Amino acid sequence: MIRIGILGCGRIGQVHARTLRTMDDATIVAVSDFFPEAAETLARQCGAEVRSTDDIIASPDIDAVVVGTPTDTHFDIVKSAAAAGKHILCEKPVDMSADNIGKLIDHVDKAGIAFFTAFNRRFDPNFANVRNRIVAGEIGQVEIVTILSRDPSPPPISYIGSSGGIFRDMMIHDLDMARFLLGEDPISVYATGSCLIDPEIGKAGDVDTAAVTLTTATGKICQISNSRRATYGYDQRIEVHGSAGMLRAANVLENTVDLATAAGFQAAPPVNFFLERYEQAYASEMRTFIAHLSDSSVAIPNIHDGLKAQILADAAAQSLDEGLPIPV
Amino acid sequence: MIRIGILGCGRIGQVHARTLRTMDDATIVAVSDFFPEAAETLARQCGAEVRSTDDIIASPDIDAVVVGTPTDTHFDIVKSAAAAGKHILCEKPVDMSADNIGKLIDHVDKAGIAFFTAFNRRFDPNFANVRNRIVAGEIGQVEIVTILSRDPSPPPISYIGSSGGIFRDMMIHDLDMARFLLGEDPISVYATGSCLIDPEIGKAGDVDTAAVTLTTATGKICQISNSRRATYGYDQRIEVHGSAGMLRAANVLENTVDLATAAGFQAAPPVNFFLERYEQAYASEMRTFIAHLSDSSVAIPNIHDGLKAQILADAAAQSLDEGLPIPV
Amino acid sequence: MIRIGILGCGRIGQVHARTLRTMDDATIVAVSDFFPEAAETLARQCGAEVRSTDDIIASPDIDAVVVGTPTDTHFDIVKSAAAAGKHILCEKPVDMSADNIGKLIDHVDKAGIAFFTAFNRRFDPNFANVRNRIVAGEIGQVEIVTILSRDPSPPPISYIGSSGGIFRDMMIHDLDMARFLLGEDPISVYATGSCLIDPEIGKAGDVDTAAVTLTTATGKICQISNSRRATYGYDQRIEVHGSAGMLRAANVLENTVDLATAAGFQAAPPVNFFLERYEQAYASEMRTFIAHLSDSSVAIPNIHDGLKAQILADAAAQSLDEGLPIPV
Amino acid sequence: MIRIGILGCGRIGQVHARTLRTMDDATIVAVSDFFPEAAETLARQCGAEVRSTDDIIASPDIDAVVVGTPTDTHFDIVKSAAAAGKHILCEKPVDMSADNIGKLIDHVDKAGIAFFTAFNRRFDPNFANVRNRIVAGEIGQVEIVTILSRDPSPPPISYIGSSGGIFRDMMIHDLDMARFLLGEDPISVYATGSCLIDPEIGKAGDVDTAAVTLTTATGKICQISNSRRATYGYDQRIEVHGSAGMLRAANVLENTVDLATAAGFQAAPPVNFFLERYEQAYASEMRTFIAHLSDSSVAIPNIHDGLKAQILADAAAQSLDEGLPIPV
Repeated sequence: MIRIGILGCGRIGQVHARTLRTMDDATIVAVSDFFPEAAETLARQCGAEVRSTDDIIASPDIDAVVVGTPTDTHFDIVKSAAAAGKHILCEKPVDMSADNIGKLIDHVDKAGIAFFTAFNRRFDPNFANVRNRIVAGEIGQVEIVTILSRDPSPPPISYIGSSGGIFRDMMIHDLDMARFLLGEDPISVYATGSCLIDPEIGKAGDVDTAAVTLTTATGKICQISNSRRATYGYDQRIEVHGSAGMLRAANVLENTVDLATAAGFQAAPPVNFFLERYEQAYASEMRTFIAHLSDSSVAIPNIHDGLKAQILADAAAQSLDEGLPIPV
Repeated sequence: MIRIGILGCGRIGQVHARTLRTMDDATIVAVSDFFPEAAETLARQCGAEVRSTDDIIASPDIDAVVVGTPTDTHFDIVKSAAAAGKHILCEKPVDMSADNIGKLIDHVDKAGIAFFTAFNRRFDPNFANVRNRIVAGEIGQVEIVTILSRDPSPPPISYIGSSGGIFRDMMIHDLDMARFLLGEDPISVYATGSCLIDPEIGKAGDVDTAAVTLTTATGKICQISNSRRATYGYDQRIEVHGSAGMLRAANVLENTVDLATAAGFQAAPPVNFFLERYEQAYASEMRTFIAHLSDSSVAIPNIHDGLKAQILADAAAQSLDEGLPIPV
Repeated sequence: MIRIGILGCGRIGQVHARTLRTMDDATIVAVSDFFPEAAETLARQCGAEVRSTDDIIASPDIDAVVVGTPTDTHFDIVKSAAAAGKHILCEKPVDMSADNIGKLIDHVDKAGIAFFTAFNRRFDPNFANVRNRIVAGEIGQVEIVTILSRDPSPPPISYIGSSGGIFRDMMIHDLDMARFLLGEDPISVYATGSCLIDPEIGKAGDVDTAAVTLTTATGKICQISNSRRATYGYDQRIEVHGSAGMLRAANVLENTVDLATAAGFQAAPPVNFFLERYEQAYASEMRTFIAHLSDSSVAIPNIHDGLKAQILADAAAQSLDEGLPIPV
Repeated sequence: MIRIGILGCGRIGQVHARTLRTMDDATIVAVSDFFPEAAETLARQCGAEVRSTDDIIASPDIDAVVVGTPTDTHFDIVKSAAAAGKHILCEKPVDMSADNIGKLIDHVDKAGIAFFTAFNRRFDPNFANVRNRIVAGEIGQVEIVTILSRDPSPPPISYIGSSGGIFRDMMIHDLDMARFLLGEDPISVYATGSCLIDPEIGKAGDVDTAAVTLTTATGKICQISNSRRATYGYDQRIEVHGSAGMLRAANVLENTVDLATAAGFQAAPPVNFFLERYEQAYASEMRTFIAHLSDSSVAIPNIHDGLKAQILADAAAQSLDEGLPIPV
């Protein structure tokens, strides 16, 4: 039985708690949050205690922590938790600075703990299916990866300024997915981007529409495009062209119903909210983390994966600034 | 807070318990089962007590019972529970005999309780979407309903003999769906059927492949076809042709992935297991039952719906025997 | 080089002429029509002569005739043409009376000519693909055939009265398709029908919405439904459930474009006009006729197929009248 | 009646001749080819004369020429034909050198003739539908264009060396499509490419897998990816993300049939041969050319479009060489 402390009882902490409550081999012992009521509410739902974050990290009856606090708290929490020998599932981004993540790698390595970077999309049943079939050889060698990723609508302008920008905030998921599907690391990143949706996003120093091209040492290519706004909903598709075939994962639609009228056949829009779209991914992610703690051969996105995605996002931002491809 | 007693802790009782545990306005107080260990296991998971079925029906701290016991026990249980003033959610079929269901209607009416016939497919998000859009007028007047319903594989031969036959055991879901989509009651039932899959099914007195045509007083038509075996999985589709358009619900597939090879594009098979295929339907069904207990304007499939589906199934069986359409 | 006479220069005669003009092993020698201008126009386009129907039948420089004249002229034309040793491609229905078709069989057999009943849908690339794959064993034994067939809009009321009714005029195509896909002859026909679209159709003695169930001696089942009006266009689908899988042919859409908006994904409507929907079928049908004249092993729908479809349509009409299944 | 001379009776000349033969407002007067038999065969089929290319250009009974000769003959032919006042439909590429196309623009402008650059894909019904609906405002402002274009298999190695490379030989169609869909000219081209399919292609100085990113002055972005080999056939898809929705054109499949087995639903592969895939596009292209000659308001891809696509292809080749984005 893995004993869990949940640090951060916001939206994502609640999602993880919901999964943990259905599991037989994990239990939530304690939760913490900056806002006491948030912690108390979740504690009550889970039959857990409220403790401070420091107490949870120091608690001998806690094996692992789930870090869902704001990004700027991750560094200190991860450092302390690692020092205390707690296993860690940490929401992305691990840190806004690749240098800091590099430092955390040392702490994590020294402590010998498991560190799971919460790239939840790897655990989406559709995307995982694509990856598993690539590994199984169904399409031969990967040649071209195409990732189309669009949010339903932009975040508040107030958020944009502190978000780290579209590459670190939004595309980082796609950059990790690119590595996951390519099966090797990019050596070059070229980015372009524009502010087409809302000029306020531009004033906040960001773009809202972006495209990236990655190339690997063996010549594999990945194209990613992002938009902060798709009027038709949350658009999440991947496609992998290989030497022996092609695999693609289409959107998950709200239902399977078609309406036929003189205008044609109307299918449902994509599932629109990320927590709903990736509900199964979040649950599978947590189950994989717990499974990994018993059997380290269960593959997880580790802290190196967190670092590498951050390096790609940094390179994309630099490429957009400089107008040049950036070697990584 | 609705206080629930679960009668029968088998597969379906467990499904309902799982939903009830996630609800804030219902709680499982007690469970019963013929096999004590089954009851104890579920009780432990739910934080509920084990009691006898009679005790649960007599318990003043129970508002409603969920009847998931074998069909031949339904009659006595429903009669007693109604007499005790408990609301009832009863798995289909309510009883193998339409006469008996008729008698239960009297008990239910006299007791003034809510009786929910568990036609779970009405609560499938896809099928409910079709129904809601019919009611909203999106396709005008309903004219032709087509229901294609195929099981992955036949039940054990030992089950066939006591099943009541394909019309009462399997097609009853489709007959209820037909009423749900037609929006009126059939006045004629014509059935044909064959034993094409396994001659043992024929020896057990049943068919494994069947087709039914229903017609209503206003001339609406419904065609249903059933097979006990679809090599490609659990095939569940409906389609409604109306005066202003057509609505159809396709299968729910295991994932959204396509594999392209020289043979073409391979999509995933349908979700194969009925508990998985109708997972959302079961959950929505229970939530609707609980909601109905607070607000009787929330529509439910009631005991009359249970009776009418049974009458259609009886008529289909008679039609197959006699080779003639049967007026109902 | 097969020398062709086209009898009837209306819409369907023109379709056949267009195919023949692209062929290297057939040539149109002469055309006839009740309206001289129609014949002259087509003759000019084809570089053919205008002759009378009798002259064409008597012409020694004609090998085969294409009969696209009104149905009530077919009997005399076929009789004469057979007597003159001309091969015949005859539009459906061969005759409104199954008895008359029976008499023509004698004439055709005695003359030893090829007689092609123009069931064009057998030559639709999609439907032919389904049939070929059934024959190739891809789905094992056929068990259930489902045919959904809907016209965009009803014919003029003036036509209804002389049409022979929905079963002989419209469903006859589906009845032939049923035989084509079942691979054996039905022994029972049950029909139901209603007048839901236009009461004038009912006053003219017909129904506009109909459903038929066919059963064969080995227990195969076919369900057909027809509507004279689909607001979304010409809906033509078939589906065959077999012991080892299922084959289905979806509609041919106007294009492959999807529009995504908040309402979902809008695909194009079906190709709406029968001459366009079955353009490839008409061409393939004619090429098959010509090929059969050189190599009689090339399979064609012959006059017996024409008779059997007519008998099924007659039985369906009788079933609707009597409210009983009709043995055939 | 437009009087046509066909220069070059190879595959593409024959395609154009086939369309012209079905048209009422155009006629093929004469044809020429380097190989006399090729010219004679086509002349016989069309009821046209064989003349030399020079004679056709000089013929007063010819209004327009269709140039389907090898690329290296285009320059002289176009120059002469323009000087002779003939309208021109010229296969792409107009010339391998953008400079040469620039010179031809002067000749064409001075002569005042119509010049149609045969970018046939603009006339594909699916792609034209997307473009027309963009122009009609159905998706608001264009923001991101995605073009996925893969050939079934690479051309012979002997062809690669003289092809001009993947960008000028293959992607030029996609570069024109990008301009067609973006509605404005790119100002920057970034290309990457690899030799993943056949090392012989690399030895011949080319890549077989390539990706390009285009950006326009207003910040619109286009991503194109090409592969010389798709095991599943000829893959041709476009997608346009706009401020008010998204339009995409899927592949044209060989048929509409699905096979369901335990492995899932198998749809047909894409139509595999470019002449078949773009059959309607070729016909529509020629009809548009002829229509333009009577009504110059009918839009065509003109010689400037030919030049601009060539400039983009040159820039892509340069970008791949230099590893940098190229301003255009």
